[in-house]
Amino acid sequence: MTSAVYLDCNATAPIRPEAAEAVLTALKIGGNPSSVHAAGRAARAFLEQAREAVAALAGARAADITFTSGGSEANGLAIQSAVRAGSRRLILGATEHASVMEAAQATGLPVELWPVDARGVADLEWLETRLSAWDAGDGRPFVALMLANNETGVIQPVAEAARLIGAARGSLHIDAVQAAGRIPLAITALGADTLALSAHKLGGPQGAGALVQRPGAEVTRSLFGGGQERGRRGGTENLPGIAGFGAAARLASADLAQDRSAWRDSAAERLKARAGVVVLGEGAPRLSNTLCFACEGFSSELQVMALDLAGVMVSAGSACSSGKVKASHVITAMGRPDLAACAIRVSGGWATTEDDWRRFADAWIEAHARRPARKLVEA
Amino acid sequence: MTSAVYLDCNATAPIRPEAAEAVLTALKIGGNPSSVHAAGRAARAFLEQAREAVAALAGARAADITFTSGGSEANGLAIQSAVRAGSRRLILGATEHASVMEAAQATGLPVELWPVDARGVADLEWLETRLSAWDAGDGRPFVALMLANNETGVIQPVAEAARLIGAARGSLHIDAVQAAGRIPLAITALGADTLALSAHKLGGPQGAGALVQRPGAEVTRSLFGGGQERGRRGGTENLPGIAGFGAAARLASADLAQDRSAWRDSAAERLKARAGVVVLGEGAPRLSNTLCFACEGFSSELQVMALDLAGVMVSAGSACSSGKVKASHVITAMGRPDLAACAIRVSGGWATTEDDWRRFADAWIEAHARRPARKLVEA
Repeated sequence: MTSAVYLDCNATAPIRPEAAEAVLTALKIGGNPSSVHAAGRAARAFLEQAREAVAALAGARAADITFTSGGSEANGLAIQSAVRAGSRRLILGATEHASVMEAAQATGLPVELWPVDARGVADLEWLETRLSAWDAGDGRPFVALMLANNETGVIQPVAEAARLIGAARGSLHIDAVQAAGRIPLAITALGADTLALSAHKLGGPQGAGALVQRPGAEVTRSLFGGGQERGRRGGTENLPGIAGFGAAARLASADLAQDRSAWRDSAAERLKARAGVVVLGEGAPRLSNTLCFACEGFSSELQVMALDLAGVMVSAGSACSSGKVKASHVITAMGRPDLAACAIRVSGGWATTEDDWRRFADAWIEAHARRPARKLVEA
Repeated sequence: MTSAVYLDCNATAPIRPEAAEAVLTALKIGGNPSSVHAAGRAARAFLEQAREAVAALAGARAADITFTSGGSEANGLAIQSAVRAGSRRLILGATEHASVMEAAQATGLPVELWPVDARGVADLEWLETRLSAWDAGDGRPFVALMLANNETGVIQPVAEAARLIGAARGSLHIDAVQAAGRIPLAITALGADTLALSAHKLGGPQGAGALVQRPGAEVTRSLFGGGQERGRRGGTENLPGIAGFGAAARLASADLAQDRSAWRDSAAERLKARAGVVVLGEGAPRLSNTLCFACEGFSSELQVMALDLAGVMVSAGSACSSGKVKASHVITAMGRPDLAACAIRVSGGWATTEDDWRRFADAWIEAHARRPARKLVEA
């Protein structure tokens, strides 16, 4: 049996060996970074090394990194911080991740969705118009926009949005979970107040993330238990997770120049030629690792299962909802709800090879040829 | 040079080799537990194995475990859940951990401290009287009581408290972070609604914990990002951390019969005989791994530093506050604020030997003999 092909890196990427090693080293240090004795000091030093690496990935100062349990916590923390700072109405990109959507809804404040065009790109004119009519009673405008979409890989015009938001004296949170380590990013160049990162999308371990802030931005305290993270997040730090995050960030930073979109695009061309698949977000700037496409009459579930049987791992939409049968809000927001139930996401990572993309395309074409006839599906 | 002696397990315990191995295995699985493909299913199965082990440690059902980023998050979640369920006034044991104290204060609700006696044991009569005068306008009574104190090891009369709270139709949260894996515990026998656990105090990795609930108790959602943890906590699970937690819980469960208090007590006797140290909580039931004592005129900081130089790692109070010079609220609550600045905590763990305790006592006696004269300290 040949080895499996893993193309679900937007759900979780394989661990980089150096990151696994950093996790192990942290486990062996065995000190609490808050302890003053030798083991505690070693733990603290290892923690701060990781903080430097994550800061470098985000173009930020180490002091502006708050480690969290992952990207979802970081997104939630950004929204809580904005509310604490006085925002009374939240604007979210229509294709934001569930952690942004749900955290915003949980505040009980009015939430407005900022529409995207057919390519999945946020409509800057809409934002400009909306901000020009902002009601001061709604407090400081708050906008959340992801840098790259988890399902389609579409890259949003974040810097342009930041200029509009800055002119309206609003604040901007960027979910950079999928973009980090795949395209260059710098919080100040992007013009964001806060930015969310996750370790496990870029070859670090699950369970670690960070909220990055611009110097001077306010981050609310949400977890309690001590003065850790400059008082921004209590509780003993996840040293192994953070150490692995740091190692992965260091490697991802060095890796950014690689553009492997040709591998993805040649797979996509074969599928288009064979089955007329529709590539979502094709006309927009996209992460080079992500391919989201739909094949009418061939359900997402069947595609994912057939590929899995062939040893090729991909997903239908985001992993967070992949257990459920739920139409993708991303594809729906792009005006193609008709395609949402027959789309899949294929996403490579640091370990992906050209051969992986080729084998995926082979397997998909074979699965497509053997797919049940429509009548059988409907029976 | 001889190897160092680590006696700061209440801050963080050394990782058990089997737990480190489980972390590595999880890192290698490399799937997101929410993905439906082969790697995702393997990740899910590994996650659920760990859940079973943690449930067994807490005498709970696997379905009643919510994995968190640690004990602090679990404590905060319990308090948020009680507030969401309608409690309008919070009663906390006077020696609770900072994560309980601060999370309660952050709710903005009135917080009452439930006093302890000179041994550090919560006063049950006080609670009975207080509950009998409960104002219905304050909602359902909520009480948080730790099972064992992090600084002194004192074990609280939790089951007795639960009976009083049950009679008043109140709810009880138990912080079992220090007790778990050291004394037997079962959430139903204890009569608690919720119970907090942490992996890294019992030989698992930092960054993983759990909130255990009795069947039917309500746990509020606080982190968003998907339907993980039965909808109780969103975000990709920290699979490596949880796997290590599971492995450590399994070993700790098997280890519970070991009572090593004789090692600690013989060290304490030597210190008493030599320097008249006062053992905090000595008259109360205590964890067999913990020794908290004070030596008048010999400051906590000097003790910790002198021991560290001798290769013996202990702490002054809890690790969470060990960076700061702050009198222990635990010792203050026991009526001995005069001792708070000259007390240290010595805490063993699964890897601690009799020789470690002996070397600690040797080193302490030597440090005591060489301590600066009082005049020098005051200069």
